Amino acid sequence: MIHTLNVRSSKREDLVDITSRVAELIRRESKSEGICYLFVQHTTAGITINENADPNVGRDMLYALARLIPKDDPNYRHNEDNSDAHIKSSLTGHSAYVPFQDGRLLLGRWQGIFLCEFDGPRERTVKVCLF
Amino acid sequence: MIHTLNVRSSKREDLVDITSRVAELIRRESKSEGICYLFVQHTTAGITINENADPNVGRDMLYALARLIPKDDPNYRHNEDNSDAHIKSSLTGHSAYVPFQDGRLLLGRWQGIFLCEFDGPRERTVKVCLF
Amino acid sequence: MIHTLNVRSSKREDLVDITSRVAELIRRESKSEGICYLFVQHTTAGITINENADPNVGRDMLYALARLIPKDDPNYRHNEDNSDAHIKSSLTGHSAYVPFQDGRLLLGRWQGIFLCEFDGPRERTVKVCLF
Repeated sequence: MIHTLNVRSSKREDLVDITSRVAELIRRESKSEGICYLFVQHTTAGITINENADPNVGRDMLYALARLIPKDDPNYRHNEDNSDAHIKSSLTGHSAYVPFQDGRLLLGRWQGIFLCEFDGPRERTVKVCLF
Repeated sequence: MIHTLNVRSSKREDLVDITSRVAELIRRESKSEGICYLFVQHTTAGITINENADPNVGRDMLYALARLIPKDDPNYRHNEDNSDAHIKSSLTGHSAYVPFQDGRLLLGRWQGIFLCEFDGPRERTVKVCLF
Repeated sequence: MIHTLNVRSSKREDLVDITSRVAELIRRESKSEGICYLFVQHTTAGITINENADPNVGRDMLYALARLIPKDDPNYRHNEDNSDAHIKSSLTGHSAYVPFQDGRLLLGRWQGIFLCEFDGPRERTVKVCLF
């Protein structure tokens, strides 16, 4: 089953926790065991799994990525002023899967699923496939 | 169904767009909905999804990776002069999956699939699994 | 089928080769063809595929990651002194899949599967799903 999540980011660089929305899709699924595949259909956004208890973890990740891949670099040639966003999205990746069992995501205690916005704010599309 | 794509790179660091070859495998597949799994069987090449409209996006990505992970660093201990390539391949990753539906890859409008060559030019092998 | 591997790391930053343990699970599996999904249930550990012939490859990767994402940075705000580990885990990712056929992982000649420990030593849990 392939679902579509619309996810709104609120800043140029933002991590949006989508864990509860994904968990809800699993709960409604008839299949009890399988893989939940997430796929971001964009080239300046990514997806990652990380701690969602302390929001500073996500903040520190965006800080470190911005330090490594600065927004402005005179050597970039792509002229839409968002090369940093494209590069960051390839570093986090555009997909993440999580196994599920008995209708529950097999996430670790501290893990959450985040859309990584690198060129927002925007509305983004995430495909969620349960097989 | 597991297919093998042979992909030729033309430079030491190169992004080779394999989107149309993967799409063709999906079109010939009898299954209409599922996941297309790509897997690179190498340790100095990776795979990524990013914009394939402006080739400068890929160029900027290779530029940024080379700036972060220089080819020559006196602290590397692996003595084949390609530690940078091994490291970059773990950052992009060796696999990427894309859902498909009605015989079409569910890629976003700007997304393409690229073999990331970090120690070429060479011929590389990509396994494409449709399940 | 969903299995659980317990993996012990021996240093703060460590790569633990789990290839043979994963291969053994595949050998015992009744299904001969499919995808082996690995999923790390932690936020300060990741998983990657890279060369397991020369241990210096893994050492160089940990060195490069430590240079890019230093353990101590006064700008980090997460106060558990392990922001670097969280960030690195999102760069390598928390999952890796490998196709299998005829009871064998379709790894390339030089590829091995490594748990990436970034805040050890600890015992970690890896879910291995064969579908």
